[in-house]
Amino acid sequence: MVNYLEEINGDLWLIEDEQDNLKVSYRIKEVIYEEQTPFQHLMILNSYDFGRMLVLDGVVQTTSLDGYIYNEMIAHVPLAIHPDPKTVLIIGGGDCGVAKEVCKYENIEKIHMVEIDRQVVTACKQYLPAVSGKLSDPRVEFIFADGVAFAKTKKNEYDVIIVDSSDPVGPAHVLFEKSFYQSLYQALKQDGIMVCQSQSPIFHKKIMNQTYHRIEEFFPHVKRYTAVVPTYPGGLWSFTIGSKQYTEPVPSKVDN
Amino acid sequence: MVNYLEEINGDLWLIEDEQDNLKVSYRIKEVIYEEQTPFQHLMILNSYDFGRMLVLDGVVQTTSLDGYIYNEMIAHVPLAIHPDPKTVLIIGGGDCGVAKEVCKYENIEKIHMVEIDRQVVTACKQYLPAVSGKLSDPRVEFIFADGVAFAKTKKNEYDVIIVDSSDPVGPAHVLFEKSFYQSLYQALKQDGIMVCQSQSPIFHKKIMNQTYHRIEEFFPHVKRYTAVVPTYPGGLWSFTIGSKQYTEPVPSKVDN
Repeated sequence: MVNYLEEINGDLWLIEDEQDNLKVSYRIKEVIYEEQTPFQHLMILNSYDFGRMLVLDGVVQTTSLDGYIYNEMIAHVPLAIHPDPKTVLIIGGGDCGVAKEVCKYENIEKIHMVEIDRQVVTACKQYLPAVSGKLSDPRVEFIFADGVAFAKTKKNEYDVIIVDSSDPVGPAHVLFEKSFYQSLYQALKQDGIMVCQSQSPIFHKKIMNQTYHRIEEFFPHVKRYTAVVPTYPGGLWSFTIGSKQYTEPVPSKVDN
Repeated sequence: MVNYLEEINGDLWLIEDEQDNLKVSYRIKEVIYEEQTPFQHLMILNSYDFGRMLVLDGVVQTTSLDGYIYNEMIAHVPLAIHPDPKTVLIIGGGDCGVAKEVCKYENIEKIHMVEIDRQVVTACKQYLPAVSGKLSDPRVEFIFADGVAFAKTKKNEYDVIIVDSSDPVGPAHVLFEKSFYQSLYQALKQDGIMVCQSQSPIFHKKIMNQTYHRIEEFFPHVKRYTAVVPTYPGGLWSFTIGSKQYTEPVPSKVDN
């Protein structure tokens, strides 16, 4: 098993070095759980500054301290734009944080959550409750499968699709390909909305812009927004929405 | 001279380790300038991801890539709130980026810039033009002195005071003390406004809140705001405003 942790002067450190020119190192209290799954190396670590964190192939995915920012921002923006979402598909999101946010809408009837790596869900439900909320809502149906293949089988079925992928290296790279966005278009109802995380405006401008243009090939309305996520490099993260019909939340009527 | 750079596998890295539990490492192309001043260790480095950076005692202060965010946010917010600023005092800000922003207001008549370390100004004017703009506006009067002592000598003189300090360790710690905010109150005109950088909402909550409460002891109106600064730890940074009279920009009249 690859060792992603380093001991320096008696302290344990996780050194993220997936970028060429910037490394971030986190001091770690203890390894809560570690496993080589069929898809990736998985750790739940307890860190000094961010509490418990999910780490895949040595890269921090979400933390107890700031995970809610990402999950709220990727879930509530499309759900606020769609006037009456009933059926939601989540692709990725194995930490269950997005599903937890989607479950807050009482009118949503069905949530399909398609995650390729069952072990991520199992580990996060057990060891990362601050993010997963130990998710047990009966409206959530877990499907442990390839999100790309799953989306291809669906036509005109969802109001909202949320793509909560990891970086476009490793198993998630197919979630950034053009044909995938086409599948999402077809899997959505005629007034459906999709959203995906589209990487850092500072470090991944090329992927961010490519994502925008690929979505634009299928969806008439495309919007990008950002949120501050302290544990992602540069602290700022982007999300991109593709919508078949709606462009913004219906404004409340203002009386003068 | 202390060596803040490390060679790893033939690459040069700056490893910021002023925090206990989080380190950020930047890959460096070359050292543009280096000097031990009477106050601190100063470097201008050329980095791969952020272009040229000012580094004091091993900590990144500002970069060519994102320096403008901090400088615009600390300068334009108080200057937008004050309806007619004529006289401005900048304390710190040796990289000249704040002064560059203040100079954009044609109606401002006098800008006092009090920086303790003359070498920072000299180095940034020469080697960090993306931030300093090679500042040469005749309204700017440079005073190389202790900002605390300087502020104490002033009464009822400034419309806006901007405190652009480094972290509250080293020479800047006095810029976070209660008596300093009292001096600023007295140095401001009766409708004056002050602003200071108040550290990270993620990593320095205690200092951020302490700053707020110390300013609140003298100023009737206190507001905090944030900006995304990718090269500061956590990516989010806070600023705190103390105002004697104004609380927000006068809104434009909206016609129906």
